[in-house]
Amino acid sequence: MRTISENRCFGGVQGVYSHDSKVTNCEMTFGLFLPAEAEFGPVPVLWYLSGLTCTHDNAMTKAGAQAFAAEHGIALVFPDTSPRGEGVADHEDYDLGQGAGFYVNATQDPWAAHFQMWDYIAEELPRVVTAAFAIDGERQSITGHSMGGHGALTLAMGLPGRFRSVSAFAPIANPLMSDWGRKQLGAYLGSDETAWAQHDASHLMRDIGFDGEVLIDQGTSDQFLELLRPEALAGALATRRQPGTFRMQQGYDHSYFFVQSFMPDHIDFHAEALWQ
Amino acid sequence: MRTISENRCFGGVQGVYSHDSKVTNCEMTFGLFLPAEAEFGPVPVLWYLSGLTCTHDNAMTKAGAQAFAAEHGIALVFPDTSPRGEGVADHEDYDLGQGAGFYVNATQDPWAAHFQMWDYIAEELPRVVTAAFAIDGERQSITGHSMGGHGALTLAMGLPGRFRSVSAFAPIANPLMSDWGRKQLGAYLGSDETAWAQHDASHLMRDIGFDGEVLIDQGTSDQFLELLRPEALAGALATRRQPGTFRMQQGYDHSYFFVQSFMPDHIDFHAEALWQ
Repeated sequence: MRTISENRCFGGVQGVYSHDSKVTNCEMTFGLFLPAEAEFGPVPVLWYLSGLTCTHDNAMTKAGAQAFAAEHGIALVFPDTSPRGEGVADHEDYDLGQGAGFYVNATQDPWAAHFQMWDYIAEELPRVVTAAFAIDGERQSITGHSMGGHGALTLAMGLPGRFRSVSAFAPIANPLMSDWGRKQLGAYLGSDETAWAQHDASHLMRDIGFDGEVLIDQGTSDQFLELLRPEALAGALATRRQPGTFRMQQGYDHSYFFVQSFMPDHIDFHAEALWQ
Repeated sequence: MRTISENRCFGGVQGVYSHDSKVTNCEMTFGLFLPAEAEFGPVPVLWYLSGLTCTHDNAMTKAGAQAFAAEHGIALVFPDTSPRGEGVADHEDYDLGQGAGFYVNATQDPWAAHFQMWDYIAEELPRVVTAAFAIDGERQSITGHSMGGHGALTLAMGLPGRFRSVSAFAPIANPLMSDWGRKQLGAYLGSDETAWAQHDASHLMRDIGFDGEVLIDQGTSDQFLELLRPEALAGALATRRQPGTFRMQQGYDHSYFFVQSFMPDHIDFHAEALWQ
């Protein structure tokens, strides 16, 4: 593990680290906020998964999460959104390849060699951060924005018992019915759509649900509403009788100004589950 | 005035606008956060002046101020740090020319034609924003970071009665004795150092002071301590018997992680003066 930077922040430390990932077969970078409480022992952790084109850096600098994580004594992990580097496959479109891992394990060429983001987030990075930092692996929650909201919801429902709570900001909610989904799942997983359903939050919500509380925020002025398809997720949540809250927020768009506006609510929500 | 973007944010609007400045003789861009309360009438305003290399955008996206401004019903203005554009003089160094206006009115060539940042911040931009938006010109306070902290302090002390409170994050505190100051004041104002003293916060603090409360935060691990010279300002504040607070913050550096960590305190501080 290499330390790229460490800055004191709200009494804790905002660090950026890199490590050689065996799962994605390249160097991976992540951000980690440790609150002051971590000096005295392991603290709960909230995973924040980012959206298309983002690195570990975007939410770390623009989502305004550290203020509220510090208040509650919670660590934040900001993983990258894909493998990166010269030897890693890429595509000229912004929504495929580097910066667009979609939180799946690719089975198709040229992606399979590195694009194993499900296993990276579900298995390897949790091992790395709990081994190296004062983070309590028994108290984890997860959130994310857009493609990262998709990742948060699919990981939370796909790994029962792992996360105490899950939330999402404007998630890609129904990728099987969207151009933000069909294109990438086809490229990474191949044309057999039966393999795709476990990566569709609306399908998972209807079929499995989540053993805990769910919180979803979606702006009514989001420029990507037709690609995100929040109506599928809201319907599935109600159909499932899933304990949780789905909010359409008047006038908000898809930007980090939307994310930061509801970050205090989301951190309060996760803190309640993590400190139970 | 042109609207570049408007995003809903904490119940208000984070906008970016541009206008043709007569003072700097070029198009100028600024960020403006209006809280929800502005729908019902003019609200108090806090000016945030940014540091070297910054545009209107940096603090607007990374300082985490909107959450707390919204809580207190206060507007935020994020001006640019210099004139910009193809016809505007510049220099290859990051700390001179575009992005480095130093909040002075240049008298020397090639800078004098556009670099009139004191008048722009003191006169023109306040007229523009109070005319176009629900902002109460009678209730203004000012803050800033690094070069912007220098600007906030010198403007506040140089315009008695204008601002109800002033604060600064790691300000360039004593530019007459620093390479962040002598170089720029010499270039913009010429070699006669008598014209420089009104742009040195430590001199102004000793000679004039501020008619209100002052709050200064400075990180102990700031990589630029020798250029900032906080000791000169702290000494002047004590010598002057100036009502105010000067804090050395253990372990913090010069980054926006430092700024955002103390932003809640600064906004609380200004809110108390603005809502009196």
